[in-house]
Parts: sequence; structure tokens; C-alpha cells
Amino acid sequence: MVSAHRYPRRVQFAETDLAGMVHFSWYLRYVEEAEHALWRAAGLSIHDPSSGVGFPRVAFSIEYHAPLHFEDEFEVDIRIEALSTKTIRYRSVVRRADEAVASSTHTAVCVERGVEPMKAVPLPDAIRERLAAAGAS
Amino acid sequence: MVSAHRYPRRVQFAETDLAGMVHFSWYLRYVEEAEHALWRAAGLSIHDPSSGVGFPRVAFSIEYHAPLHFEDEFEVDIRIEALSTKTIRYRSVVRRADEAVASSTHTAVCVERGVEPMKAVPLPDAIRERLAAAGAS
Amino acid sequence: MVSAHRYPRRVQFAETDLAGMVHFSWYLRYVEEAEHALWRAAGLSIHDPSSGVGFPRVAFSIEYHAPLHFEDEFEVDIRIEALSTKTIRYRSVVRRADEAVASSTHTAVCVERGVEPMKAVPLPDAIRERLAAAGAS
Amino acid sequence: MVSAHRYPRRVQFAETDLAGMVHFSWYLRYVEEAEHALWRAAGLSIHDPSSGVGFPRVAFSIEYHAPLHFEDEFEVDIRIEALSTKTIRYRSVVRRADEAVASSTHTAVCVERGVEPMKAVPLPDAIRERLAAAGAS
Repeated sequence: MVSAHRYPRRVQFAETDLAGMVHFSWYLRYVEEAEHALWRAAGLSIHDPSSGVGFPRVAFSIEYHAPLHFEDEFEVDIRIEALSTKTIRYRSVVRRADEAVASSTHTAVCVERGVEPMKAVPLPDAIRERLAAAGAS
Repeated sequence: MVSAHRYPRRVQFAETDLAGMVHFSWYLRYVEEAEHALWRAAGLSIHDPSSGVGFPRVAFSIEYHAPLHFEDEFEVDIRIEALSTKTIRYRSVVRRADEAVASSTHTAVCVERGVEPMKAVPLPDAIRERLAAAGAS
Repeated sequence: MVSAHRYPRRVQFAETDLAGMVHFSWYLRYVEEAEHALWRAAGLSIHDPSSGVGFPRVAFSIEYHAPLHFEDEFEVDIRIEALSTKTIRYRSVVRRADEAVASSTHTAVCVERGVEPMKAVPLPDAIRERLAAAGAS
Repeated sequence: MVSAHRYPRRVQFAETDLAGMVHFSWYLRYVEEAEHALWRAAGLSIHDPSSGVGFPRVAFSIEYHAPLHFEDEFEVDIRIEALSTKTIRYRSVVRRADEAVASSTHTAVCVERGVEPMKAVPLPDAIRERLAAAGAS
């Protein structure tokens, strides 16, 4: 079972803005890339055509501590902070070397794919068997 | 029937890069926004759930003449250059005031949605009745 | 003096993802577009070459209530919730017709442009004269 | 001297659109990421603060052969097709396994950074010593 993952990445040119640093919206994509890499490390795909479920976000909260720049190498440390019947809450820290440049919490809810209005459903067993909360840290 | 459209737009912060100008990939999105606005002007949607067809691009060619900057106001002048049984070719010019800052040609093909490998199919009559080639100019 | 602004927008194709709705990272850009439109309504630019200051974000928190879809028309209602010597806190609601589809809070800090590590500086008078907190609501 | 580079990549969720495939604008960013990786393989950075020059694109032409999907692994094979005094022309093929899914040509011009209107200048020797045209293939 997987409860945490470290995802390495490099800043690309298109992710910067005219202030000369990474645009703040990109950090949410970095964290999402790490989340999906965590799922792959668990042998899962966040968008498995056979599962019938999807994981829209219901909340995302992020603090920015220092800017990232073009070609910086960094890591996203993501862990599952809580796992309820229908939701998963993640905690992530974006680090450049030993410096935390951003930290975030986000919550995804399990829904039946293609059904609107969305309705939360229990996480399928095939997913629950492979993901676990990381515990306090 | 609609064969051309003028689409006004303003440069947003997230569209710029650390060189202080709009990232070159954004022009394709500006042109696509204009294309979809042309369809709306014709009473159509490029992604009509009831039509069963989609319009992936098969080719896009663009020349950049001058940079756009943050908060610049500009227009995309798009017209249908050619309309065959299964494809639509567009010609677009991105203008700031009277200056052409980019010009492009792109071709979209009509395919049955959700079928892979993709196969070109004839444009539905409901679409063909509302779009027309602009003729030489 | 300006303390609130309503910004109209339409969902573009490139803003959707394979789940058939707007990708969650795009809401931060919608809110930022509204913020910069509020500044323009006050006769200001968030990136005025002559001001010497910039406004990086230090925190962004958002809740998603319902999905937006391709070609949806919506509005961002943004207001200045608090204005301190060196920071501005905004509160925004993204609405489609009468439905709130997302709500957010974010904080920007005034820094001297081009100086790293960043250091907060007081808002210039030329900006402070034109922006005001909206008060409770 | 470097004249070609192979850049591996995986499709991320935010790069897909509601048609269930990678949005066509993303391929330009994939090719640009490969271009900058080629520069790094040559010991260079496309945005070296000490060089004083930048490389805006003047033309980009791309053909799309087949769609990429979420989590697909692919490679960009990029090579320098021609190197003149002031410009570099690249040729790229995006491949998934043995299938070419897109192919492109783009041209960048060397300009003095921060000067507008832009004016082409000769490539600095420090760059010219490390990049070479790949020759016909």
C-alpha cells in the first residue's frame, strides 16, 4: 500500500511569467502530477476507464514561501493525510534542495464518472486496497 | 452562413513568460478561441454533444511578426479559407491596432467522436448549412 | 476608489480536461484575471513598469462547489477583503447564473520588483489612493 | 557539439481536453521542452542571464498524425536542421513507441534581450561552439 511519494520535476519555460518566476497556478499542476505519480506507484491510474469513478477536487489550499525559476530542479513530497469512505486528503510540500518553496493541502472526492450533478460514492475496493493514510508527521 | 469572424481579446498575465512577452504557444489558443467564436456566430458549437462529431487539428502553421505584451488588446481575424467534404481550413491574422503580430493557417478534420483510430467523416449537413468558405482575399 | 469588481468570462476549450469539465487549476487564473480587471477599473496596472513593485501571491485557498463546462458563461465577483500596509487580501466567488461554482481567498504581498530574496514593502501611495477594502459583506 | 536530442515525457492530466486527448497546443510546449533539454545537453541554457540574448520563435509548423492520451509515455526527437548566423531551425518528431504522432519544424532567431523592436543579432560564439546542424537525415 502506498501513502506517500516523492516526485522530481524541472521548471519549464512556459511555466514562468513576466515577473521572471513560476506562475502561481502551476504549483497546483505540480502537486497534481505528484498525486497521479503516487497512484501509479500504487499500480493505479487516477483515470482508469474500467473503474467508473473520477476524483474532482473539492478544496485546494496553498502557501507560497519562495519563488521557483526557470530550469530549477525541485521535488513534490506528497502524502495521503486522510482517507475517508468517499474522500482523500493530500498534504504536499514543494522543495528545491532543502528549501520548502510551497506547501499545500487538497481534498478529492470519489464520484461516479459522467453523472451530474456529482454525487460522492465510496472508493472502490480495488483502490482502497492500494492506498493508505500516511499518519501524522 | 458564416465564413469569417473578428474576435477581440486582451493578454492575461499567465500568458506571458520570463522573456516579458506572450509565450508562443498561446497564439494557437487565441486562434482556437476565435474559431469557436466563429462557430457560435453561426449558431453552432464545436463540441455539440448531439452532433456526434469532433474536429481535431491535422496541421497548424504560424508565423510570428512581433511580440504581444501583458494587457495588450488585440483581435483575431479568422476566416474559412477552404471547406471540403471532410475538412475545414482556416486562415487567421492576430492584430494589435493595425499591426499584424502573427498569421496562421490550420486545418481541422471532421471525425466521429470517441472512435479510435480516428477516421474522417463528411461534415454533417447541420454544420455545412451554416459555414462557408470566405473566398480569396 | 475601487474595492470590488465583476468580471465576465466564457469557458474555452483548452481549459477543459478529459473529465469533461474545467481543470481545477484554471479557477486561479480566472480569479487572477478578475483581480487585474479590478486594478484596471481603478486606473492601475498590476505590472506597471514605472511603479517598481510587484504582487506575488503568498496564499491561495479555494473551494469547488460545482463543475464548469465548455462554453459556459460565468462571472467572477472579486472584492478586496483587507488591505494592510504591505498586503492585499481578496475574496472571490465564481458564479454561473445564480449558482456559486467556486469561492476563494487569496493574499498578495507588495514587493520591490526584481529583488531576491523577496522583501515586503509598503504599497505605494499611487496604488493606495485607488484601492480600498470592501468591508464586511 | 550537440545537434540532436531525445527527450522522454509522460502526458499529464492538465494537458488533456474534453475530447479525451492532448490539446493540440501542448505539442509546441513538448517540442520546446525538448529544445531546452538539447541546450542543457550542450552545457547551455536558452535563458542565460549572462548571455544578453534571447530566442523568440519566428515560425512554427506542425502536423498531427495521431492523438496522445493521458499517461501515455512518448519521446520528442529534436535535431538542429539548419544553423545560420542569426537563426536556428529545428525539426522534431513526437513518438509513442515506434509511432510518429506529430512532426514539426520551427525557427528561432537570436535577438538582443530586452530591446524592442526586436532585431536579429549573430549567435554568440559561446553558443555557436556548442551547437551544430545535424545534416540531412
